[in-house]
Amino acid sequence: MKKLINDPNDVVVEALLGVEAAHPDLRVDHANKVVYRGDAPKPGKVGIISGGGSGHEPLHGGFVGLGMLDAACAGEVFTSPVPDQMLAATKLVDGGAGVLHVVKNYTGDVMNFEMAAELAAAETGANVVSVVTDDDVAVQDSTWTAGRRGVGVTVLLEKIAGAAAEEGRDLDAVAAVARKVNAQGRSMGVALTSCTVPAAGSPTFQLGEDEMEVGVGIHGEPGRRRVPLAPAKEIAEMILEPILSDLPFGSGDAVIAFVNGLGGTPLIELYVMYNEVSKILSKHGVSVARPLVGSYITSLEMAGSSVTLLKVDDELLSLWDAPVRTPALRWGI
Amino acid sequence: MKKLINDPNDVVVEALLGVEAAHPDLRVDHANKVVYRGDAPKPGKVGIISGGGSGHEPLHGGFVGLGMLDAACAGEVFTSPVPDQMLAATKLVDGGAGVLHVVKNYTGDVMNFEMAAELAAAETGANVVSVVTDDDVAVQDSTWTAGRRGVGVTVLLEKIAGAAAEEGRDLDAVAAVARKVNAQGRSMGVALTSCTVPAAGSPTFQLGEDEMEVGVGIHGEPGRRRVPLAPAKEIAEMILEPILSDLPFGSGDAVIAFVNGLGGTPLIELYVMYNEVSKILSKHGVSVARPLVGSYITSLEMAGSSVTLLKVDDELLSLWDAPVRTPALRWGI
Repeated sequence: MKKLINDPNDVVVEALLGVEAAHPDLRVDHANKVVYRGDAPKPGKVGIISGGGSGHEPLHGGFVGLGMLDAACAGEVFTSPVPDQMLAATKLVDGGAGVLHVVKNYTGDVMNFEMAAELAAAETGANVVSVVTDDDVAVQDSTWTAGRRGVGVTVLLEKIAGAAAEEGRDLDAVAAVARKVNAQGRSMGVALTSCTVPAAGSPTFQLGEDEMEVGVGIHGEPGRRRVPLAPAKEIAEMILEPILSDLPFGSGDAVIAFVNGLGGTPLIELYVMYNEVSKILSKHGVSVARPLVGSYITSLEMAGSSVTLLKVDDELLSLWDAPVRTPALRWGI
Repeated sequence: MKKLINDPNDVVVEALLGVEAAHPDLRVDHANKVVYRGDAPKPGKVGIISGGGSGHEPLHGGFVGLGMLDAACAGEVFTSPVPDQMLAATKLVDGGAGVLHVVKNYTGDVMNFEMAAELAAAETGANVVSVVTDDDVAVQDSTWTAGRRGVGVTVLLEKIAGAAAEEGRDLDAVAAVARKVNAQGRSMGVALTSCTVPAAGSPTFQLGEDEMEVGVGIHGEPGRRRVPLAPAKEIAEMILEPILSDLPFGSGDAVIAFVNGLGGTPLIELYVMYNEVSKILSKHGVSVARPLVGSYITSLEMAGSSVTLLKVDDELLSLWDAPVRTPALRWGI
C-alpha cells in the first residue's frame, strides 16, 4: 500500500485538519467529523447537509460552501457516518427553515440519516426532509444497497438544490427540486483497477491485468460484468447505452454531461472519454447544455470513470449556473 | 497498461477533441495542437502563451481562458511541442501589445520557444518576451534540463501574469511580474509510483514496492534520493526543508501554499499532506495567505505530491485574487 498518509487509522481525522487549515471559510467539528460553513446557520435559509463514507473526495466536504452544502459528515473510509454525526450537522445548519438531508442510497447511510432525522425532530423540533439518490443504472441491488446505488447525480443535486436553498426557496421546494434532479439523472461507471482502504491495507477487490469491471460501485461493488480491457470508445458505449435507454434520454433532450474520474485516472484520459461521450450523445440527438469533467466523486485511487447525464430544463440550468463557492466547485463569486 | 484511451498514439489528438467539445469558450487549432481563447486576439492586451509536453493536465490547456493564458501548445506526452506550434499560438493571440512566452526549464522547450520567438519576429514583427520557470529545488541539472526544472510555480505564474495582462499592463510589466513570481517561488516533489507514457506502454522508471523518489521530476526524472516509503509527516519535512531554506522563506513571510497531486494520488491524501505542510509552515512563522490543494501539474497517473511555496506581497495577492475563468481554475466570474 503506497499512500501519502501517517497512521492508516488517522486518515480521516488528519484530512479534516487539512481541510480546516486550507479553507478559512469553513469550520470543522472534529469530534463529530462535520465540515460546515463558517456562516452557518443562516437564519431563514433551508440548511442542506450530506455525508457518507470518506474516500470519495471532494464529495462531500469539498462541496460545502455558499450555494451548495451547509455541512457534510465524514464517515470512516467507505463506512457510513453514525446518526450522532448527522444530528450534530443538522443542528449546526438549522436556521429555522428546516434541513434537507441528501442521502446516497446505501443501506447504512439511509438508516443512519433516518435515525438522525428522528433524533433531531425529538431534540430540537427540527423539520428534516430526506432525499435519497439512486441514479446508478448498473445493477438493481448491490453489496450494501437495496435498489440502485446513489452515485454521480449526488454531485449535481447538491449544486442545484444548494442554489435553490440559497435563493430562499422553502424546504418543500428545495426537496422537490432535489427529487427532480435524482429522477432525471442516470449514471454508470467502469473500474480499471481496484483501490485499497488504508485501514485494510490490501485491495478491496481483485481485477486481472487485462480486466475491467463494467458498472462498478464507488466502493468496488460488483457491476454488470467483468470484461477484457477495451478502448475508450467501446467503454463509453458500454456505459452510455444503459444510461440513455434507462430514463430514456432522446433526441431534443438537453443534459448536463458529467464525466467523472474515480481518483487514479488522469485528466487527459477523462478528456479522451469526454470526446467519446460527446460523439455518442450527438448521434442520439442529445445536446450538452453544460459539461463537467473531473474527479468529483471518487473511490480513493481507483482508476476508471463514471458518466452521469442529467436531463435539464431552464429551471435546473439556471440553478446550476448560480454562483457557488466551495473548495471543489466554484464560479460566479 | 490500463488506460482509458483508444490508440496510444492518438491520446493527445483525442483529448484535444474532448477539450474542444467540453469548453465552448475555447477553440482548438487541431493541426497545430493549440488550445486558445475564443476571443483571441484581444486588441491591446498582452497575449500569454505556454505549452509543453502533454501528460501534465490540467497544465497548460486547462489554464486557457479569461485572466490566465491566451493559448497553450500541447506536445506529445512528455515531449516538447515544436516551434511551429508555438509560432501558431503566438500569431493567434497577438493583439498588437506583444506576447509573453511562459516556458518551463526543459532544454527542448527552451530551445523551441526561442526558435518560435525568432520566427514570429521575422514573420509578423511580433514582440515576444520569454520567461523561464526553474523553481524545482531538488537538483541543479536533470535528465532533460540544464539548471533547475520548472514545475509547480508555473501554475501560479500563469494565473498571476494572466491577471496582470488582463488588467492592461504592458509586455515589460507583465514579464516583470512573471519573473518576480519565478524568483519568489520554490517547489519540490515526491513520487510514490512511476507512470506509463501511452505510446511506450511500460513504466517510465522502476520504483520498488516500498520505495519512493524524493525530488522527482514531472517526467519521472531522478530526484535527490530513493528512500523507503515514509509517513506523510516525514515526507512533508523532506520536501519542505529544502524549499524553505532555499529562498529562504522565514518568519513573517506570507505565501501561497500549493499542495499538488501528481495525478494518481487521491484528494484525501493531499489534505493529509496539506495538514503536515501547514504545521511546518506555522512552526517557521510562515503564514499561508492563500492555499491551493489539488492536482494541477501532473505526471499522468503517477502517485505522489509536490509542494510549491510562493512568497507574496499585496501586488501578487491582488493579482492572484483577480477573476479567472478557465477549465481548471475559476473564481470571481
